[in-house]
Amino acid sequence: MKITAARVIVCAPGRNFVTLKIETDQGLHGIGDATLNGREMSVVAYLQDHVLPCLIGRDAHAVEDIWQYLYRGAYWRRGPVTMAAIAAVDVALWDLKAKAAALPLYQLLGGASRTRMLCYPHASGADLPELLERIAALRAQGHRAARVQCGIPGLGAVYGVRGGGLNQPAGMPAEQEWDIGAYMRFAPHMLAEVRDAVGETFELLHDTHHRITPIDAARLAREVEPLHLFWLEDLVPAENPEVYRLIRAASTTRLALGEVFNTIHDCREVIQQQLIDFIRASPLHAGGITHIRRIADFAALWQIRTACHGAPDMSPVTFGASLHFDRWVPNFGIQEYAGHPPETAEVFRSDWSYDGDGHLLSGEAPGHGVDIDEVAAARFPYRRSYLATARLADGTAWNY
Amino acid sequence: MKITAARVIVCAPGRNFVTLKIETDQGLHGIGDATLNGREMSVVAYLQDHVLPCLIGRDAHAVEDIWQYLYRGAYWRRGPVTMAAIAAVDVALWDLKAKAAALPLYQLLGGASRTRMLCYPHASGADLPELLERIAALRAQGHRAARVQCGIPGLGAVYGVRGGGLNQPAGMPAEQEWDIGAYMRFAPHMLAEVRDAVGETFELLHDTHHRITPIDAARLAREVEPLHLFWLEDLVPAENPEVYRLIRAASTTRLALGEVFNTIHDCREVIQQQLIDFIRASPLHAGGITHIRRIADFAALWQIRTACHGAPDMSPVTFGASLHFDRWVPNFGIQEYAGHPPETAEVFRSDWSYDGDGHLLSGEAPGHGVDIDEVAAARFPYRRSYLATARLADGTAWNY
Amino acid sequence: MKITAARVIVCAPGRNFVTLKIETDQGLHGIGDATLNGREMSVVAYLQDHVLPCLIGRDAHAVEDIWQYLYRGAYWRRGPVTMAAIAAVDVALWDLKAKAAALPLYQLLGGASRTRMLCYPHASGADLPELLERIAALRAQGHRAARVQCGIPGLGAVYGVRGGGLNQPAGMPAEQEWDIGAYMRFAPHMLAEVRDAVGETFELLHDTHHRITPIDAARLAREVEPLHLFWLEDLVPAENPEVYRLIRAASTTRLALGEVFNTIHDCREVIQQQLIDFIRASPLHAGGITHIRRIADFAALWQIRTACHGAPDMSPVTFGASLHFDRWVPNFGIQEYAGHPPETAEVFRSDWSYDGDGHLLSGEAPGHGVDIDEVAAARFPYRRSYLATARLADGTAWNY
Amino acid sequence: MKITAARVIVCAPGRNFVTLKIETDQGLHGIGDATLNGREMSVVAYLQDHVLPCLIGRDAHAVEDIWQYLYRGAYWRRGPVTMAAIAAVDVALWDLKAKAAALPLYQLLGGASRTRMLCYPHASGADLPELLERIAALRAQGHRAARVQCGIPGLGAVYGVRGGGLNQPAGMPAEQEWDIGAYMRFAPHMLAEVRDAVGETFELLHDTHHRITPIDAARLAREVEPLHLFWLEDLVPAENPEVYRLIRAASTTRLALGEVFNTIHDCREVIQQQLIDFIRASPLHAGGITHIRRIADFAALWQIRTACHGAPDMSPVTFGASLHFDRWVPNFGIQEYAGHPPETAEVFRSDWSYDGDGHLLSGEAPGHGVDIDEVAAARFPYRRSYLATARLADGTAWNY
Repeated sequence: MKITAARVIVCAPGRNFVTLKIETDQGLHGIGDATLNGREMSVVAYLQDHVLPCLIGRDAHAVEDIWQYLYRGAYWRRGPVTMAAIAAVDVALWDLKAKAAALPLYQLLGGASRTRMLCYPHASGADLPELLERIAALRAQGHRAARVQCGIPGLGAVYGVRGGGLNQPAGMPAEQEWDIGAYMRFAPHMLAEVRDAVGETFELLHDTHHRITPIDAARLAREVEPLHLFWLEDLVPAENPEVYRLIRAASTTRLALGEVFNTIHDCREVIQQQLIDFIRASPLHAGGITHIRRIADFAALWQIRTACHGAPDMSPVTFGASLHFDRWVPNFGIQEYAGHPPETAEVFRSDWSYDGDGHLLSGEAPGHGVDIDEVAAARFPYRRSYLATARLADGTAWNY
Repeated sequence: MKITAARVIVCAPGRNFVTLKIETDQGLHGIGDATLNGREMSVVAYLQDHVLPCLIGRDAHAVEDIWQYLYRGAYWRRGPVTMAAIAAVDVALWDLKAKAAALPLYQLLGGASRTRMLCYPHASGADLPELLERIAALRAQGHRAARVQCGIPGLGAVYGVRGGGLNQPAGMPAEQEWDIGAYMRFAPHMLAEVRDAVGETFELLHDTHHRITPIDAARLAREVEPLHLFWLEDLVPAENPEVYRLIRAASTTRLALGEVFNTIHDCREVIQQQLIDFIRASPLHAGGITHIRRIADFAALWQIRTACHGAPDMSPVTFGASLHFDRWVPNFGIQEYAGHPPETAEVFRSDWSYDGDGHLLSGEAPGHGVDIDEVAAARFPYRRSYLATARLADGTAWNY
Repeated sequence: MKITAARVIVCAPGRNFVTLKIETDQGLHGIGDATLNGREMSVVAYLQDHVLPCLIGRDAHAVEDIWQYLYRGAYWRRGPVTMAAIAAVDVALWDLKAKAAALPLYQLLGGASRTRMLCYPHASGADLPELLERIAALRAQGHRAARVQCGIPGLGAVYGVRGGGLNQPAGMPAEQEWDIGAYMRFAPHMLAEVRDAVGETFELLHDTHHRITPIDAARLAREVEPLHLFWLEDLVPAENPEVYRLIRAASTTRLALGEVFNTIHDCREVIQQQLIDFIRASPLHAGGITHIRRIADFAALWQIRTACHGAPDMSPVTFGASLHFDRWVPNFGIQEYAGHPPETAEVFRSDWSYDGDGHLLSGEAPGHGVDIDEVAAARFPYRRSYLATARLADGTAWNY
Repeated sequence: MKITAARVIVCAPGRNFVTLKIETDQGLHGIGDATLNGREMSVVAYLQDHVLPCLIGRDAHAVEDIWQYLYRGAYWRRGPVTMAAIAAVDVALWDLKAKAAALPLYQLLGGASRTRMLCYPHASGADLPELLERIAALRAQGHRAARVQCGIPGLGAVYGVRGGGLNQPAGMPAEQEWDIGAYMRFAPHMLAEVRDAVGETFELLHDTHHRITPIDAARLAREVEPLHLFWLEDLVPAENPEVYRLIRAASTTRLALGEVFNTIHDCREVIQQQLIDFIRASPLHAGGITHIRRIADFAALWQIRTACHGAPDMSPVTFGASLHFDRWVPNFGIQEYAGHPPETAEVFRSDWSYDGDGHLLSGEAPGHGVDIDEVAAARFPYRRSYLATARLADGTAWNY
């Protein structure tokens, strides 16, 4: 099965997505996602100008070899752009291999380890009442878990909460103000109120989005320990994993991180030292199916579970691939399910479904079950767009 | 694809082999190897009396789930009998899955990472001249590497060297005499002579078969350092991996071990602490394809390479499965290729081949490419047989 | 004293037991237990087909040599099947040696270190009231300690609690549903209620049976710290002992594990790193009297105490042998005393007794004091039977 | 000083370079290098499509804030593409700041710590005689140090040695064959011959370019210990820094690595654990002047010295900036000085010089002293080009 063509499709049905389509001499095609939110065109160039010319004529079945060739052969390894590009190729090739075998992708990974996947949507409120309302709405849809984020009194727009950015010209990154003190005073209280409202059985997740410091993270984890959260996520940046030792020593609150990790090397230390309980690496930003199964297997040795990043900054292709991965991976934990803008469904066809009972079902079509309608895609041209950024009140650049 | 039947076939074409055959409602069957040399019937009972009744009616595609079910569900985990039984099921199911996909097994693992696999046959001599003769014969066949073992002056039969055991009634385990001092005086000399005879480019491997002590192993590894062996193998038992720290500190001679390891947990410490350079776990004794790919991926994080056990105490089924694994695994090192008794070929059909140039070629038939002829198998009934055992001159039971 | 015969007796008085009987030319016989619950026939074959032929004619006094011969001579070491088989031989030989010396076994181990052994029976309830009733009944019998297990609201059958499995055909392993969240919400509350009901002086033990994850185990251990449990047992699987570091850091709740351990190598890391307080290895699954005295001695170096597994999945032979071991071992902790089905007493004669005051008394007859009535045994033929297995609600295979 | 314009110039005077030019309302401009060899256009897009629009209107003096803004604000941190783009901005802004202060850049970093910088050019030979000839030529130019690389008998093109790649269509990555054994047999011999020829005072450096395995690296470092090399470089990939522990334990040969590192986090473990002696991070691939001064300061805590990557895959801009960095940095070690193709000088004007005595002199013009002639640049349009890749003889993808 020779690769005869490979091209990148950039479209913006609601938000920007970068899609790779690989075609073969057997008439089959595979689809991969290369979306890197706010840096999309860099991955496009990485693929178009450098990677795709090397793929033509290769055996589409040689997924591992092509992965190694692109990873080792670039000399400059790792990083979000490189690994998103490799991931797009890898996922498209696994899609192709599964189609060639006429099997849904999870079957090639080892078959189903479960029938359905627990998921968590996002519940956000500008204030606590609105947040509780959102949670109630999700429960009415059958959900059993939600990531809860809430506007902080005295602060403007906050990540994970609806509302635009600050004083930026159109098309520029929004700047959100951040105040560690305001967050630390509010978050434990907010989470306690939510736990009180929803009872013990609804699973609560909360994302700090790298916004506080290690000792405050330790304090937060300890203060919310009695609330029995499903997890606290991304308390502080994890580039230096050693900082998590301080946090870990303070409590038994479950911790999650890793949606920004690109390789198993980013994950190694937090896993080996058991600094986390859930690894959030996705098949997009962490190098495709080939690489995240290595991450998941490595995590399993320390009984750490998976929790694929599932935010709308990845296309439905990654979501579909994630569900096949989830269906197989023995140490599955949970799947983020943030949904996509409605226009997205005009461009991407997916065969997964929500079961109305808090779980997702992967499809049974050969491959990963997601395809792109290129004609529809053309109706939604790319527009430059950024994630927001954050600054402290004194102007200090901070972690978004 | 439902499992409709599963049975164990015990035969002895030259030596005992235990084979598992799983049949499905799609008319396909898969073959696994459950041979545990000298303890064959224990695995037979493990499968027949306990495992096989649980398989009937299950989905043959659920390889991972069945692995986990058998591993976790037995409560009593690990060990050679348990893991050989699980391996037989796992390899048979991978064989089936690949046949269902109409692809050679290596394609399901991720495709080919190489075209052919470096292998090492065994060269043994009762004395040095005979050993050198054997090596010359192998080189004439195109081989580029060999495991060299030699009779030790003053000792009788030695593992790896032709010749029977000692004073034991027929059908009982042979007892070989062992003398650490005799070995330590002879081995460095012997290896130096061999290196001198073969030159620098022929790869030399040597197996101590757990026969010496840690400090002697350290000394041996240091003394042969200038000979640039491909490796020293199984210097001492590795149940307590800490003993290898002493050995490792003494030299940069490459070390290999693990043919007796059954799970990734046996391998963990020697890999994480980089006490070895090659991990010898096989898809039979270490729990099947599902498990050794986890071992190999774990080893890769420390740039440790694979070297599947390939002695005749495993059937051609394991050898075929190993070659598919080798074809894919990115961190392949070398494949042991000790061959089988000639009668074996009457019972097992394989599609791999030797290329006449030191390398093995995996086949391209769907599955792992090895099948059993049950009619032929019936001509070679099981006969109780044992590996030899070892004792020191004073009668102390020692490691074989 | 030559071994003249050795045979395996399989019977099922209430549940399956595998018994080894070794006879000598002095007319004495020794009894060992080889029961491996759910995998019985594999040990039977290990003994009958491979080990017993090697025993005939050997000196029955050479217990150490035979242990080493079987352990080292099998080449494939460790694991539950191998070590149960070796244990059966070892316990039978110690029984013989003690009979030959006309001494109770504990005398050969070094004599009595205590007069009686604290024991803990099992108290289980489908709900809290039933559990409290059971505990009250045990206290009425004089017991001072109990392992307390309770049905979990919203879950069906739970290990350690009466009640059958789920939707499985007869003779197949039951599948129990498991829910970490339900357990974590209930267990600390349940244990607090029990502590409240029984007061401070009654010893409470609780077994999590490997059902949760490391961080949840850490949380549980922390939450129950004020309840001063005698111990928490088997919080998570311990194949990778590193995971216990996380648990250990969270609290000073005493921890026990090891009933599934087969050799001192399984125990090494958790002992050397002081990750536990009680080692639960038994003279059956951990290789006989010869091997668990080494485990106990090693544990003593770190002031860790013994607590032999004493569930009904081992025959009265192991229970009797354990009591002799307990009578001697300096670092004795406690003895599990779960009892056997009533039919068992028709087949096995034991001379130990319960003192009506929370303690067990080992007998004073030569040997370990337990014998089998082969005629009675024949009335209870083997029937295939399994431990239950566990699955999460989504179908994921879990730890039983 | 407001940024009024910023543009990327891609040209190929001998090889591809990506240059960033930032202009301000004070008429000053700054120059940065964004070249990522073989993946150039990905960085171009990263800058043009995403970063540059955010720069317009910002205060060019806010170098630190802009660095943090681009690093934290991208959300997806680290990696070669991201950090090369940030580096280009950073170096251009430092160039501007120095020009605004009318001072050479090193003055803003803290002033000169030395008058001149020891450098090492490359000496390569297809064979040993040619290599020795090259070294002699370099000594005739006054050089006191050289990186020595030599063709390996039996292998084709080797990194660092002139000669093309293998069987690849034009414009595709060359594939070089690699053989660990051939290298290991030859390298110690080659280095010994060179040391013998040049005497003790000429400094010899050697680069293994990630081509061997940890244990072979340990052996190589031990075997060449008596040769007193200035260093061995890039023995194995360092994504998992733990592998260097094995190498480090084997010898006192000085080790260098890090030219592929992108952030201080890549460097942290090898520095904290003293696994290297020289850190080769450059102001291009490791995030600019702002970031490598942090790396150098961190390294100084363990008395580890700098050695900026200075290969022709970075433009003269980086070379000039490196020399200013070298002039200041207290823990300077050495500067790589590989030179550029002759056409490069038609496009880039530099004010540094070689002193004819083995050392480089940084210039005294304001800024970093390197500028681009855009008209000349236009004469050398970009052509897709790749670094070579490497494969073992059996086809395995290997590290270039």
